[in-house]
Amino acid sequence: MCGNQNGVETELADHGLYEELTRYCESDCYPYHMPGHKRSLEAGEMAQYYGIDITEIDGFDNLHHAEGILQEAQERANRLYGNVETETFYLVNGSTCGVLASVMTAAGRGAELLIARNCHKSVYHAAILQELRLHYYEPPILEEYGICGGVDAREIARLLHQHPNCAAVVITSPTYEGIVSDVRAVADVVHGQNKILIVDEAHGAHLGLQGSTLPSALSQGADLVIHSLHKTLPAMTQTALLHVQGERIDRGRLRRYLSMLQSSSPSYVLMASMDSCIRYMEANGPERYLFMRRQYELFCEKMEKCRLIRIGNMTCGQKPWDHKKIQDKTETESAACADAKKSDEKWEGCIAGWDIGKLVIGVKDRLMSGQQLYDLLREEYHLQMEMAAERYVLAIMTVMDSAEGWQRLADALAEIDDRIERGTISLQKAADTGWTEKITAGADKDCGMTAAQAYFGPREEVPLAEAAGRAAADFINLYPPGIPLVVPGEVISDEMIWRIQSCRNMGLQVQGVTDEGKICVNRAEIL
Amino acid sequence: MCGNQNGVETELADHGLYEELTRYCESDCYPYHMPGHKRSLEAGEMAQYYGIDITEIDGFDNLHHAEGILQEAQERANRLYGNVETETFYLVNGSTCGVLASVMTAAGRGAELLIARNCHKSVYHAAILQELRLHYYEPPILEEYGICGGVDAREIARLLHQHPNCAAVVITSPTYEGIVSDVRAVADVVHGQNKILIVDEAHGAHLGLQGSTLPSALSQGADLVIHSLHKTLPAMTQTALLHVQGERIDRGRLRRYLSMLQSSSPSYVLMASMDSCIRYMEANGPERYLFMRRQYELFCEKMEKCRLIRIGNMTCGQKPWDHKKIQDKTETESAACADAKKSDEKWEGCIAGWDIGKLVIGVKDRLMSGQQLYDLLREEYHLQMEMAAERYVLAIMTVMDSAEGWQRLADALAEIDDRIERGTISLQKAADTGWTEKITAGADKDCGMTAAQAYFGPREEVPLAEAAGRAAADFINLYPPGIPLVVPGEVISDEMIWRIQSCRNMGLQVQGVTDEGKICVNRAEIL
Repeated sequence: MCGNQNGVETELADHGLYEELTRYCESDCYPYHMPGHKRSLEAGEMAQYYGIDITEIDGFDNLHHAEGILQEAQERANRLYGNVETETFYLVNGSTCGVLASVMTAAGRGAELLIARNCHKSVYHAAILQELRLHYYEPPILEEYGICGGVDAREIARLLHQHPNCAAVVITSPTYEGIVSDVRAVADVVHGQNKILIVDEAHGAHLGLQGSTLPSALSQGADLVIHSLHKTLPAMTQTALLHVQGERIDRGRLRRYLSMLQSSSPSYVLMASMDSCIRYMEANGPERYLFMRRQYELFCEKMEKCRLIRIGNMTCGQKPWDHKKIQDKTETESAACADAKKSDEKWEGCIAGWDIGKLVIGVKDRLMSGQQLYDLLREEYHLQMEMAAERYVLAIMTVMDSAEGWQRLADALAEIDDRIERGTISLQKAADTGWTEKITAGADKDCGMTAAQAYFGPREEVPLAEAAGRAAADFINLYPPGIPLVVPGEVISDEMIWRIQSCRNMGLQVQGVTDEGKICVNRAEIL
Repeated sequence: MCGNQNGVETELADHGLYEELTRYCESDCYPYHMPGHKRSLEAGEMAQYYGIDITEIDGFDNLHHAEGILQEAQERANRLYGNVETETFYLVNGSTCGVLASVMTAAGRGAELLIARNCHKSVYHAAILQELRLHYYEPPILEEYGICGGVDAREIARLLHQHPNCAAVVITSPTYEGIVSDVRAVADVVHGQNKILIVDEAHGAHLGLQGSTLPSALSQGADLVIHSLHKTLPAMTQTALLHVQGERIDRGRLRRYLSMLQSSSPSYVLMASMDSCIRYMEANGPERYLFMRRQYELFCEKMEKCRLIRIGNMTCGQKPWDHKKIQDKTETESAACADAKKSDEKWEGCIAGWDIGKLVIGVKDRLMSGQQLYDLLREEYHLQMEMAAERYVLAIMTVMDSAEGWQRLADALAEIDDRIERGTISLQKAADTGWTEKITAGADKDCGMTAAQAYFGPREEVPLAEAAGRAAADFINLYPPGIPLVVPGEVISDEMIWRIQSCRNMGLQVQGVTDEGKICVNRAEIL
């Protein structure tokens, strides 16, 4: 018998997609089907990767009409995160397509949408594809690092009152830097107005899993939640999940968008990696988290001895795993923001928790720029950070990090701390880019165009220095993580020009400005 | 030194993305960055796949703003297919996103579009996302197998005259079954009207490569050409290329759609597989094609002895590799259709060639159904076909097929031929589904709604048998390959109901009909 047409469904409880694929590919069945590499060991230098790369043959289901092994796999993922009333979809085009499908499902053509201004560019892309009119929640900036704080539910309430036609609200939690918002409080406000809440939880696929102490947005009531599996869990890049719950979402419409925005030939390697990840976390998650928390504690013990190096979530005033109260509280959810503020006055914004997997590492009084710290760690210690910002570097830690990984970072930072104090490093101070107010400071003048109109309208390139008063025709992003400084349709101000130039001078990667320092603006002159 | 920030560009000529990734991952550099598996050997059952799975760290470029190693890799792909005036983009969301971006670039919101009715569903999806009004070219049906023939350029000219506001024309060549159209003739007609020609060449990434004898759509003048790499070449599933040439396409607009429709975390494993594939074909393509053509000749020699089994491209009247004249001719291109028709009168439609990698295998006089042949090959010979249709099975052959692969199929077919003739198989005849005219026969009544309006409008489920006269609210596809029998907005006829029921009765996979035999229709009653 060729393949495994029979028995897949009953056997799935015992073994996953990867094992099924391996079994098929080890059979004597000759493939007169795609993919074209035919699993040949002669198929080039990556032949060993092709062993389980198949297409939708008998017994292996179809992601776009799942009813067999892929349906079972998605149900397994749902059980890990949700319950019988939630539903989970595999995404092979990353969180990007989950965000696009979610926003396009929740907000029809030309609708209004309220989004946190620090949303990922995919949220803006959805708004362009659907020609939405955007309203912004401006998260406060945590000044020490120049990063966005949490979402204040009271402010969301005020904005929904001001823009009552918004179809939905989109927020990012945790942020790229690990700041977790009080999603329950936001959900209460949004649902109170009978709107849809979409949470881009791309950086928090580990939230809510057994052993992790921060709650997931799904458990806090969000209608649609997007998870990147690869960012914080052991899965391949470009893999993600979309969760939906409740009655506010038209699930048929959601499925239709997902089927349009993802390849009709989804990769079984990516899908097997997702299944492998879910199974791994089921089996090993609690134990790995225990290990990770212990490593974080040891790391903190060492870092507490540093006099200049500072770690974001250590200095948040409370250790993240004390946040269990957030999970447990029932009555007092919407008061969480106020609580958080009270507990540590210097933390502006509403922070419900700070992920221990996101180490935001800065130097006191901005004595050393993020870029200098990044280069130092990379070149002298062979430690590759996730990114460098103006005032910090970001290290991403997951359950797969080894004790050695934690220790090498702690030792390197302790040594650098010592070197700075002893004055043996020539310091490049972090510059001031005015990153103290809100992201859009100086770029929020409405020119009357939607982002889509500006993005696809007539455009021309002008030197950045001469762009004041013009409507942007393209995104200007600080990368990573790709949050727009300027969105098409926003009017460029002198202040924004100065900030963009500062970022470029510091060597940060600014997308949307040419090497010659030009940007795209709409041809129309704005007054 | 950590990673390979230096020297990538100068060294790329000597080694590719895979080698660069391997080198980085074998360094002593510890990754404090995504992906979360941290390349740990403990990261679950698929850990060995994670070794080269990285993210956009220093030295590894950014697909959405490529200027380093990924730009070089895309230029290498362009050199294989195009020239200095063409441009090639890597696609990590399959041909799907290439088709979406191409159509959405060529046809703005609400525009009119002329498409061949046998286009892949992604073309229809683009039309829905962009709210296009569709006009159809109906390819003739090759009756022996019930598959679509080539595109008749004269008919395209007539339709463009009838619908002069069409922004672009989309055709599929080769088809899933390997039928290659005379793209040059179609391009001449389309460009004569100053329109854009998009060719979905997903099944023909091997066309035009050295050693392959059929010309590529790019060489024949198409403005936008989409290639699935995984379908016919040694690359992973979900990998594809988009080629653009000439001045008719706004390349900035194209880039904007590509950046919106693909993951912002593209998989380096997929991208390395694309680069590996391009390098493999550069180095080994000619030799492998020589081998493949020799195998095909041996296969044909055996098949010529069969009395009942028939192979589509053998019986086309001319061996495909005789088609060199198509590549060479200059003056007479637009006459190719007439030539093809003349050369073998029984082949309706304009066939410029029939790919030798697509073996359409049927039994004379429909003595045996495709499904029976498929099951027989699978269960008794352990040969897994690509698919079964009513009157044939499809075997996909590529340059990676071994001599054993060709031989096992030939031997099995010769034996089955003998068994049929000796009457030792209880035959299930292929049924007649009326698949003799055009795809939409009985479903082309316009209900005044665009596909988008019908797809996202109010809907209800009704039994298929009671759906006559109602406007479809969903696609009804025969799968594979996913070409719609019914498109949202089309009015369901009695004839179409009968054909869909016939397909279901034959055990073919019909998507869009529930297990209970219901379909989705628009709530409005049509007269």
